Formats: sequence, C-alpha cells, structure tokens
Amino acid sequence: MVMIAQLDPFHAIAVSTLAHRLAGQGRDIIHMEFGQPSTGAPAKAIAAAHEVLDTDPMGYWESQALKARIARHYLETAGVTVDPSRIVLTCGASPALVMALSLIGGPGARVAFARPGYVAYRNNARALFMEPVEVPCGEASGYQIDAAALVALEPAPDAVIIASPANPTGTIIPADELARIAQVCRERGIRIISDEIYQGITFSGDAPSILTVAPDALVVNSFSKYFSMPGWRLGWLVTPEDLADAARARMGNLFLTPPVISQKAGLVAFDCREELEGYVATYARNRDLLLAALPDLGLKRIAPPDGAFYIYADVGHLTQDSMAFALRLLEDTGVAIAPGIDFDPVEGNRFIRFSFAVSTPLVEEAIRRLKPWFAAQPLLETSETV
Amino acid sequence: MVMIAQLDPFHAIAVSTLAHRLAGQGRDIIHMEFGQPSTGAPAKAIAAAHEVLDTDPMGYWESQALKARIARHYLETAGVTVDPSRIVLTCGASPALVMALSLIGGPGARVAFARPGYVAYRNNARALFMEPVEVPCGEASGYQIDAAALVALEPAPDAVIIASPANPTGTIIPADELARIAQVCRERGIRIISDEIYQGITFSGDAPSILTVAPDALVVNSFSKYFSMPGWRLGWLVTPEDLADAARARMGNLFLTPPVISQKAGLVAFDCREELEGYVATYARNRDLLLAALPDLGLKRIAPPDGAFYIYADVGHLTQDSMAFALRLLEDTGVAIAPGIDFDPVEGNRFIRFSFAVSTPLVEEAIRRLKPWFAAQPLLETSETV
Repeated sequence: MVMIAQLDPFHAIAVSTLAHRLAGQGRDIIHMEFGQPSTGAPAKAIAAAHEVLDTDPMGYWESQALKARIARHYLETAGVTVDPSRIVLTCGASPALVMALSLIGGPGARVAFARPGYVAYRNNARALFMEPVEVPCGEASGYQIDAAALVALEPAPDAVIIASPANPTGTIIPADELARIAQVCRERGIRIISDEIYQGITFSGDAPSILTVAPDALVVNSFSKYFSMPGWRLGWLVTPEDLADAARARMGNLFLTPPVISQKAGLVAFDCREELEGYVATYARNRDLLLAALPDLGLKRIAPPDGAFYIYADVGHLTQDSMAFALRLLEDTGVAIAPGIDFDPVEGNRFIRFSFAVSTPLVEEAIRRLKPWFAAQPLLETSETV
Repeated sequence: MVMIAQLDPFHAIAVSTLAHRLAGQGRDIIHMEFGQPSTGAPAKAIAAAHEVLDTDPMGYWESQALKARIARHYLETAGVTVDPSRIVLTCGASPALVMALSLIGGPGARVAFARPGYVAYRNNARALFMEPVEVPCGEASGYQIDAAALVALEPAPDAVIIASPANPTGTIIPADELARIAQVCRERGIRIISDEIYQGITFSGDAPSILTVAPDALVVNSFSKYFSMPGWRLGWLVTPEDLADAARARMGNLFLTPPVISQKAGLVAFDCREELEGYVATYARNRDLLLAALPDLGLKRIAPPDGAFYIYADVGHLTQDSMAFALRLLEDTGVAIAPGIDFDPVEGNRFIRFSFAVSTPLVEEAIRRLKPWFAAQPLLETSETV
C-alpha cells in the first residue's frame, strides 16, 4: 500500500453541515462559523459580470488588465513597484498558497507558522510532504510569530508563513515588527510567504504589506474577504522575480486560469471603494458589539481583533472539547461558530472562533441568544477561572 | 538553496502570446493552438448564471444537486452507480488531476502515462515529486497505453493515467482494451486515473468510462470541453470509496470550493443536450474537412481522431523543431497551432497539433491558407518521406 499525505478535515465544515441540517428542520440559524462576507460583490462588479455573460464566450484567459490593476494597488497602498509579470491570478487564495509552498521547496522543506493559525497552512504543507514547524504564539506576541521566535528556530526553516491580519485572531503585525521579521529572514535565508487576504479590513491602523519591507516575499491575496467575493474564486500570488517563471509554469499545469467572469468583475471591484468601505464599517460595528458583550458572557481572554472579522476566545473555563462545545452551542442556540481545533491542534480544544462577517442585526440577535446560554454553562471544576 | 520542482512551460502559450501580438498589429488570426471551444456555454446555462448574479451573494458553497446530477450522468450513460459523496467538485479538470495524483501516493510514486500525452501529466507528477513513467506509444496502439504495455512495466507503477479520447491524438481506447487494462491494474495493484474530459465528443462510437470496468478508478472530468464552458473553471473528480474522505479533506484545504455561478450554470448545462450535440456536429464537420485536406498538405501520418477536437500530425519530413515550425507557420499564415513538444519531449519535435474546436468557416479559411504554405515548404534532406 502506498503512502499518501494525511490531512485533517476542516472541522468548521462539520459544524456548518449540522447548521444547514437544523435550518432544514426550520431552525433559525446564525452563521458565524466561516470567514465569509454575506454582502455579495459590489453592484458595479455584478453589472460587469452580467455584461460578460452576454458578450464573452469565456475561454481560458488571463486578464492582463487585472494584473496591471493589482500592481497599481501595491504602488498606491504600499508605495511598492511590482511588475505585473510577477503576479499570477489564481482560483482564490487557497491554490495561491499551494503554489507559494511549491515554490519554496520540496518534500522535507521546513515551513514555520504561528499556532494558532489557518488550518490550510499545516495541511497544505503536509499535502506537499513538507514539515510544518508550528510556533506556539500566545497573548504576549499577539498570537503572531515574531522576529525573536524566528531567530530561535534551529535549524532555520526554509520558509515562514505570516498572516496580518491573522485568522483566527484578527491580530496585526506592527510595521516595526514586520521590518524585524524581514531582516531576520534575509539574514537566515528564510523565504517569506505573507497571507494578506484580510488586508483592507482593519479597525485600528493599517496592516502593512510585507512588500514594504521584503520586496522578495511571496504574497497571497484574494477577492474573498475585503472585496466580498468568496464564491467567485479569484485570488492572486505575487512572486519575487526569481520565481516568476516557475510560478507561471505551475499555474499553466496545475490550474490553468481563473474564471473569466470573476477576473472581469474583480477588475471593476477595485473601483468600488465606497461600497467596500461600507462593509468594513459594518464589521467594525459588529466587532464593537461583540467586544462589549463578550465579558458579560464570561469570555474575557480574547485576542485583540485589530483586523479581519474574527474573535478568538478562550473558553477553557467551560470546556476542554471545543468541537463538542461548538456543536452543543449550535443545537441549543442556532448560533454556528468554529471550534479552536481547526486552528490549533494543541490548545484549540479550549478556544472558539466567532466570525462577525454577518449583518449587524444578526450579531445583535446572536448576542441575545448567547447571553443566557453562556450564563447557564457550568464552570469546569478543573479549570482556572480568569 | 532549496530544490523546487522544475516544470516545463506549456509551449502553446508562447504560440498564443505571439498570435495575440500579431492580432494587435491587425493580423487576422485563426486560433487552433488551444483545446478551447469557441461557442460559449449553452443559452440556458447563461440564463441561469444571470439569475445567480441577481439573487445569490455567492459564498463558499458546494452544490449537492450538481453532485447528484453527475452521479445520475454515470448511471444513465455508463450504467454505473456512483454515490454523490464520492464526487468532489473542482475548479476545472486541472486541480482535479492534482488531487487525483495526491491521492495515489507521495514523493517517488511512479505514475505511468502514454507519450504523447497531455503536458500536465508529466509536469504535475513532477510538481508532486513523483516519478513520471512515460510509455512511448505509437501508431500500432493508437498512441494509447495498452494492457500489454502495463504488463511489461517493471516494477509496476503506483498509478497509470489513461485518457480516452486522448489529447493530443483524439484516439479512443476500445471497450475490450479498457477491460484488459482494468484487469492488469487489478492484478498488479495499479491505481487508475482516467482523464475523461473529452467524453461526449466522439465521431465513431462512444468512449466508454473506465468506471464501466474499474469501479474503483479515479475519474477526472470537467465542463470545459463537451459543455463548452472552459472559462467557467468547473470540473470534478470521482474517487473510490476508500479515498473519498481524503479527497474531501484535500479539497477543503488545497482549493475550498469551485465558483458558485459555474456550479449553478453547470447543473443547467446537463439539460442542454440539443445545443451541445450541435457543437459536436460542428467538430465532426471540421474534422472531416481537415482529414480531407491534410493529405494535400503532405500530412499523411496522423493519429485517427475518433474523439476530442485534435489532429496530431507528423511533420518530420519538414522540420525537426516543431516549436520553430509553429511560430513560422503562425507568422506566415496567421494560423496558430500547438507544437508537439508540449505532448512528447522525445519525438514531439516532429509533430504538430491542430485544434478544430473553432467554427467551420474558420477551419475552411485555415485550410485555404495552409495549402500554399505547406506546398512551399522544402523537404528536409535527412528525413524519410512517407
């Protein structure tokens, strides 16, 4: 029998499946389990998509205009010049991450990232037979990998994945720390893969792109979060000059091209700032409501959500089994959340993640349901209360 | 310096790039370099897509209805029962092939396939650090791997990729040979990956699905060819029962979900038989025109194109550099074709591939341009003429 890579399932999918089953039984479900804007694409992007359907037979196609627009985005927002030939358009950030990993090494390559972190970092490294190097990151470092942690890793990993704002915590790597990370990686020969999918969604200062301090980093981004187009499956990878040819060869063989309609709509979405900033304002309101309510729920240890649309909360005083906790919470209240075990195989058993990428009335209703439920939960005898 | 997988570029892309540059200079280009229907999606599928744009915010989503419809397709066309849970929806056949390879083994796994064959078989195996086992297949076996060739491979490969109808030749594996291949693979413990992307496009009898004789095979298919929806990026993978969980975990981590709009339109496309069969009738006319004209061009050694929309022709009497030949043909006539080196790194230097997935008037015009050009080409002194 041959060996294939063993990947963990994405547990939030099981929560979501139950949520949809309950909805089918007539239950009123609030979906806070996935990081998925519910608002839909900007109106002008949708209008552009209608026009594509009417006029374009949609073959295999790459939008040079979109690559140029993304390059301009880096010039305007980060002051960084990126040649469009360094940009590969992908079917979302997920395949962009697969490509990025495939570009930094082969089987056995060591890839470091923060724990807690997005489930696919660990699993995609495993799928490529790389060695995930999970760096435990707690409150002190904002649940983020920092330069000191990278200095301490022996031997130096081949690559590090950073994420700012991060999933599941929403924390941001400050500009000075980002510069220190870039410096350490230069000195130690560590490739940087920066997951910047939540950029643009920030509440207390910008999250700078890694390209401001490490022009040779690989950057993963997509239209799924800020642009509110998750189901359009459009993302991109910025590669350094020395990997651009290899990246193009991978795209042509592994994936071909992203959807035509999404590329044309995505180009228009760049010009819909007002609508998109309105979505960010909604996330900011939702965040404030949750931050105000969580202490009343007994949830006092949370990562500061400076960006993205997540709150990662310690529920260790109530459970040591976040998956069972999430399922029970869903069955009792109709509020679906993600269990921490998706993000942290070691300590995730005592964390849960709320996604507040829903409408404000739904956040208010969720809080109404959660308050009496959390109040009724018995404290774990073995836990330290905080 | 770390080692990353070295992949060949897809050379037809370079031909296409020149074609578009020439078109930009006002040249009238006929695109026969890619396997890309020019007809667009069926009308009802486009109508369904308009409705999706107007009513669906498009999140991360998998269509259970589409999985059920694909399962029904196998029941109706092959008499085979496939549980929908064995079907994974993908962003086209390319990532489905990546998943299939990832499911049959790890680095060093030996993957056999016919040479000539689709460029991504070799490159995606390499990208996963597997060992491509290219089996030279000539006219005698219809340029297809056969059971005898699989018996002769020592040691037995971990998997074999078959393709029927095939790219670049359009040849079909007959039902009895398919059964023998399945038998050999059972006996030798070889996983079968069957690329069935050209099924439905046949001119002299059906191409049976591998599932009729090997229910535990992995099957790659998509909406890009028969359904005429390449730029919609929608495909699927059928996995055997024992790999279904691993396949779902890969999809959730490596790729997430395919485009919502494509899934909803694809479901409707299954009910557009009349329109789609009209496209196949066009390909049949185009094929007949080319088959009648090629001998006049001096192209007498071609694979019998029983399916797909390709003709793979030996031009060894005119060149030993198919890439230079393709570029010169394009510059001189405006007809873009693919060089054989994309499909065969050993003998592809003396082959070219015509794609006839264009309109019939364009095929007629291409033939008008090709006749005088081929007549003017000097025979290679070193070549054996046929």
